[in-house]
Amino acid sequence: MRFRTRILTALAVAGLSMSTAPTHADEGMWLFNNVPKKLLKEKYGFEPTDAWLEHLQKSSVRFNSGGSGSFVSANGLVMTNHHVGADDLQKLSTKEKDYLKDGFHARTLADEIKCKALELNCLQSIKDVTAEVNAAVKPGTPPGEAFKLRQAKIAEIEKGSADEAKGVRADVVTLYAGGAYHLYTYKKYTDIRLVFAPEKAIAFFGGDPDNFEYPRFCLDMCFFRVYENDKPLKCEHYLKWSAAGSQDGELTFVSGHPGRTSRQNTMAELEYLRDTGFPFLMQRLNRMEVLIGAWVGRSEENRQKGEDELFGIQNSRKARMGGLGGLLDPKIMARKAAEEKRLKDFITANPDKVPAEAAKAFDIIAEGQKKRVGYIKELTMLEGGGAFNSQLFGIARTLLRYSEEKNKSASERLPEFGEARLGSLKQQLFSDEPIHEDFELLKLADSLTLLAGTLGAKHELVEKVLAGKSPKDRAFELISGTKVKDIAVRKKMFDSGADESDPMIAVAKIIDGPARDLRRKVETEIDEPRRQAYAALAKARFAMDGTGTYPDATFTLRLAFGPVKGFTDAGQAVAPFTQIGGVYDRSKEQANKYPFELPKRWEEKKQSLDLKTPFNFVSTADIIGGNSGSPVVNKNGEVVGLIFDGNIQSLVLDFIYDDSVARAVSVDSRAMIESLRKVYDAVDLANELEGKK
Amino acid sequence: MRFRTRILTALAVAGLSMSTAPTHADEGMWLFNNVPKKLLKEKYGFEPTDAWLEHLQKSSVRFNSGGSGSFVSANGLVMTNHHVGADDLQKLSTKEKDYLKDGFHARTLADEIKCKALELNCLQSIKDVTAEVNAAVKPGTPPGEAFKLRQAKIAEIEKGSADEAKGVRADVVTLYAGGAYHLYTYKKYTDIRLVFAPEKAIAFFGGDPDNFEYPRFCLDMCFFRVYENDKPLKCEHYLKWSAAGSQDGELTFVSGHPGRTSRQNTMAELEYLRDTGFPFLMQRLNRMEVLIGAWVGRSEENRQKGEDELFGIQNSRKARMGGLGGLLDPKIMARKAAEEKRLKDFITANPDKVPAEAAKAFDIIAEGQKKRVGYIKELTMLEGGGAFNSQLFGIARTLLRYSEEKNKSASERLPEFGEARLGSLKQQLFSDEPIHEDFELLKLADSLTLLAGTLGAKHELVEKVLAGKSPKDRAFELISGTKVKDIAVRKKMFDSGADESDPMIAVAKIIDGPARDLRRKVETEIDEPRRQAYAALAKARFAMDGTGTYPDATFTLRLAFGPVKGFTDAGQAVAPFTQIGGVYDRSKEQANKYPFELPKRWEEKKQSLDLKTPFNFVSTADIIGGNSGSPVVNKNGEVVGLIFDGNIQSLVLDFIYDDSVARAVSVDSRAMIESLRKVYDAVDLANELEGKK
Repeated sequence: MRFRTRILTALAVAGLSMSTAPTHADEGMWLFNNVPKKLLKEKYGFEPTDAWLEHLQKSSVRFNSGGSGSFVSANGLVMTNHHVGADDLQKLSTKEKDYLKDGFHARTLADEIKCKALELNCLQSIKDVTAEVNAAVKPGTPPGEAFKLRQAKIAEIEKGSADEAKGVRADVVTLYAGGAYHLYTYKKYTDIRLVFAPEKAIAFFGGDPDNFEYPRFCLDMCFFRVYENDKPLKCEHYLKWSAAGSQDGELTFVSGHPGRTSRQNTMAELEYLRDTGFPFLMQRLNRMEVLIGAWVGRSEENRQKGEDELFGIQNSRKARMGGLGGLLDPKIMARKAAEEKRLKDFITANPDKVPAEAAKAFDIIAEGQKKRVGYIKELTMLEGGGAFNSQLFGIARTLLRYSEEKNKSASERLPEFGEARLGSLKQQLFSDEPIHEDFELLKLADSLTLLAGTLGAKHELVEKVLAGKSPKDRAFELISGTKVKDIAVRKKMFDSGADESDPMIAVAKIIDGPARDLRRKVETEIDEPRRQAYAALAKARFAMDGTGTYPDATFTLRLAFGPVKGFTDAGQAVAPFTQIGGVYDRSKEQANKYPFELPKRWEEKKQSLDLKTPFNFVSTADIIGGNSGSPVVNKNGEVVGLIFDGNIQSLVLDFIYDDSVARAVSVDSRAMIESLRKVYDAVDLANELEGKK
Repeated sequence: MRFRTRILTALAVAGLSMSTAPTHADEGMWLFNNVPKKLLKEKYGFEPTDAWLEHLQKSSVRFNSGGSGSFVSANGLVMTNHHVGADDLQKLSTKEKDYLKDGFHARTLADEIKCKALELNCLQSIKDVTAEVNAAVKPGTPPGEAFKLRQAKIAEIEKGSADEAKGVRADVVTLYAGGAYHLYTYKKYTDIRLVFAPEKAIAFFGGDPDNFEYPRFCLDMCFFRVYENDKPLKCEHYLKWSAAGSQDGELTFVSGHPGRTSRQNTMAELEYLRDTGFPFLMQRLNRMEVLIGAWVGRSEENRQKGEDELFGIQNSRKARMGGLGGLLDPKIMARKAAEEKRLKDFITANPDKVPAEAAKAFDIIAEGQKKRVGYIKELTMLEGGGAFNSQLFGIARTLLRYSEEKNKSASERLPEFGEARLGSLKQQLFSDEPIHEDFELLKLADSLTLLAGTLGAKHELVEKVLAGKSPKDRAFELISGTKVKDIAVRKKMFDSGADESDPMIAVAKIIDGPARDLRRKVETEIDEPRRQAYAALAKARFAMDGTGTYPDATFTLRLAFGPVKGFTDAGQAVAPFTQIGGVYDRSKEQANKYPFELPKRWEEKKQSLDLKTPFNFVSTADIIGGNSGSPVVNKNGEVVGLIFDGNIQSLVLDFIYDDSVARAVSVDSRAMIESLRKVYDAVDLANELEGKK
């Protein structure tokens, strides 16, 4: 279960989300400042203290490339998934050394390699700024104006708290789709070095076929080290290792960054997703999977360039198909409809306890979804970048827009160009990560073809974009002609303005006006009324059920919990733990063929391994994409596992929690140590994890 | 380059087609009763005699499963491609014996295995019945009536010529999209036995990545034998083998069954294909490729069940993307527009020489395409079967419809239930080919999901079809509940009427009324006016350029020709021949990994092979999907090769001929003999081919 911001950004179809109804069982992606201590005490006889929570919070990190992680030693060692690190493994690889495929092991600090454009954030504090944000928008302000005023206030708050020089990042997070605003301040780290990765064949054993399945046998782990001033970071907070691991039925906690859920969406919005948003997204995911899959198969070189992106797409496709399956399941939709009816009835019966806007909120949201159907194609193609699937285009557009945005006031600026975000933006923009022109050409030619197929070849903008050429010829002209491949050129354009004689900047310019118009229309006509409607519903829901709930996921730190627990699939009991020996059996079943072939080392070291060592396990914790790499800890806050997936039954968690068969899937801490010591001869690393160093 | 009727039928987006402008170079998929003898004599100094043509015609066979072939011995031996035979190889395979993967070799006649539901047709005669068909429709007849009258006349002609007892099949073929009607009578063979197939790994070496690429190294051949009265057929006409093969520059001929081209489509129709038809089709191909690809990867068992279908889809996807690339190429569209202008100008300038209807024909066709945009989704889902991707559904619908159609007169019957076609229909319907319920479930659940995504989950028909269940649950109910899995049940329903209490028959019934309505509307409002318009344009074109042209492809026998000739790709000369040694090099380059791994036998026998033997070659012959398996012969009518593909540059041939870089790709006759003798120890078969037996 991977969460890639680049994919999510490009392909976003859903909106944000809201607070939830009373929770059941182990439901909940809890805010660290609103953990259900009472519930935990009643159900599990364990009440986490504030210190316990603070320690776990400050040991957790967010990978801004998409995913979660944690500090696991006093010397800045960070644990995450192999598939979260894959992007970096690929960027650090060369024709000669394929770290993604063959793994990596720095035996000394000097061997650790610095990553390109990787940023880690560690949450330091949360402050409720709802009143301050809301005060910026007087009741009755027209939507377009309201949106700008709120953005300006948010930018102002962020700027007031961020400190680039001290590495402090500040984000105002919109919770309950506008029901609350919290200011999150982070310590930001940008000197991240690669320490250890196993071979992809064992990290992602079973590949796409076994993805989202259980039982599983994956060593989906990767280690990095955070540096400050060219030295390993001295960590005050980091997670200790559990020697014993976890047992069946034992309560565990997951601290990580779930990306997005849609549990509080109204029925109208879920129906939009079911009938329009998801089908449209699936078309693009299928298309990209086929395109890149075929290209990757052409040669080893292509495989190295495109495989990681391919896996990201396959992962999204499988996740979304699971989600769509939930939306098409009348049983699940009936539960959602019943929840909605309960809220509607409460609003009707209690006009004095809910905001006046709550009564009309459902209609406003439904109206917005109808409008969205009319905008989705053009919006995705032009503003969403669907027509320009190219890193170089992304760079060109950022340079073009920055040239315009930098002269604007905070309230007029697009939020991604807010002062507080410029540091991260520059790190991305000036990164020397490799850009493969052949791969760029493949993707741009295809997405220009998609543009023509979506809007029609005679659409005025399509004709302007293609400039009388075929998509393939035009893509070649743009990719081969642009100078933004050169980082020095990017820096120059960043400082003194985008050069519109560059062909890629010029094409970004062609669509920029229409793209901005579309974005503004959607923000004004749909998003802002929707935000106000959801905020009213959030207040109604608080009135109905109290504030002891959790908001939908926002790629910010959350706490989930639940016991280690098997499940039943088609009448068959599935045990909670697998063992290392199982990977040899599964590989044999599949004739040791891709993606079930074992790395040579695993074949050679089989004799020395304890084959009964627990390998992967499942628990009922409430997670979703973005939780990849989250540590799983016991009541003592010690690492017992590492989240890397959910089973296929968990894919409805986007819309509704279920603990009958939905499960989070983790690597067992014991398998990590066993393989580090016996397969990889990584004794120093194992000692560092176990605190024996 | 494979041509699968089941895919083409299910996914058809285009319409039919028309006559062509004066031909250039080696352009032309010529009718056997209108071969350009003069052109051949002038250009190549070779004029085929009527006897030469008759011999080649009667040596050629059509695989009704999709593809072409030829008789290559006096004892009924038939040569075709491995990928044409793949469907049969798969159906004949068992859990223990995977003939598709491992190959097959019957060392004696007794070892030859009978195929399931395979029909071969050998063209015996062609008769022009244009006047007779046209006489059935009086001028001024309304379109709906005209369509029925014509169908009735066609059914009457077919019935009068077919003779089920004698194995005579009769099809009236619509040429020039209605400009002419020819009656084709075939000898029909249904006892076809498998003789020899190499391993898939060498037949389809390079798999999807190398498909439509050149240089190539594929032994894409397969041999069957036709039986009559339980004995090998004694052939009067069969092709002799060329000992010497062909040389660079040598003129060759291809006799086969190109499936469909759209060269005479008007610009309005090409634009429809570019903006609507192809993009919509691509969505479904991409979706199916991803779905089936992921499932096939789950286990060896799945692979065996689904791989052949997967390759068919990948092949269509690549072919259609190539075609769409052509439609999006302004250079090609400019050539098409110039051709259209020439015809329009001729019509305007010569009102006395062209039919009165010709002047309005372009507008009528354009109007129809606009209407088609409105129908395409529902038509594809309901009548095209897009919502019911399941063999069992197809069987159920055929039974349901036959129950109704059999009571209708010839003029009212759906053409596929015409008397002359019932024999072939029954062979398909009562075939004991395996139907895999798990694979059926996968595809039906997904296509029902597609139905909901395409028409919306609240569409009245979608709600009726899903009956309050999720697509997955509903698919399970239908697949597990239907009795049409049982051939005896099918036979009973065929004789005494479809049982509407069967869940699959019942669901077919739910959509049958709306599907038939849609089909009738499209036929009346679009197809029939379009047919009349194209017929008028055909006559105008005959008036302009004479009748010495060829019609668009119709999956009927055609003659193409052209020399063996290399081409230039990105400035690099590509030689016309590859050698057997090249396959070892390419495999090594790709680390011998799937789909570039060589069969064990090829590794073992490398030493005994003459590595310089020509393996594959390219020529300028004008071919397209459906030509797969066509024999390539020299002036003496001897086999020098076997068509199996086109290069990627040939994919625009759907719309326009080009001989600068578009090439047909063949297996060399010398490689076939070399491998039969040295790798497979198939001495008897090689002797039979070479006439040494």
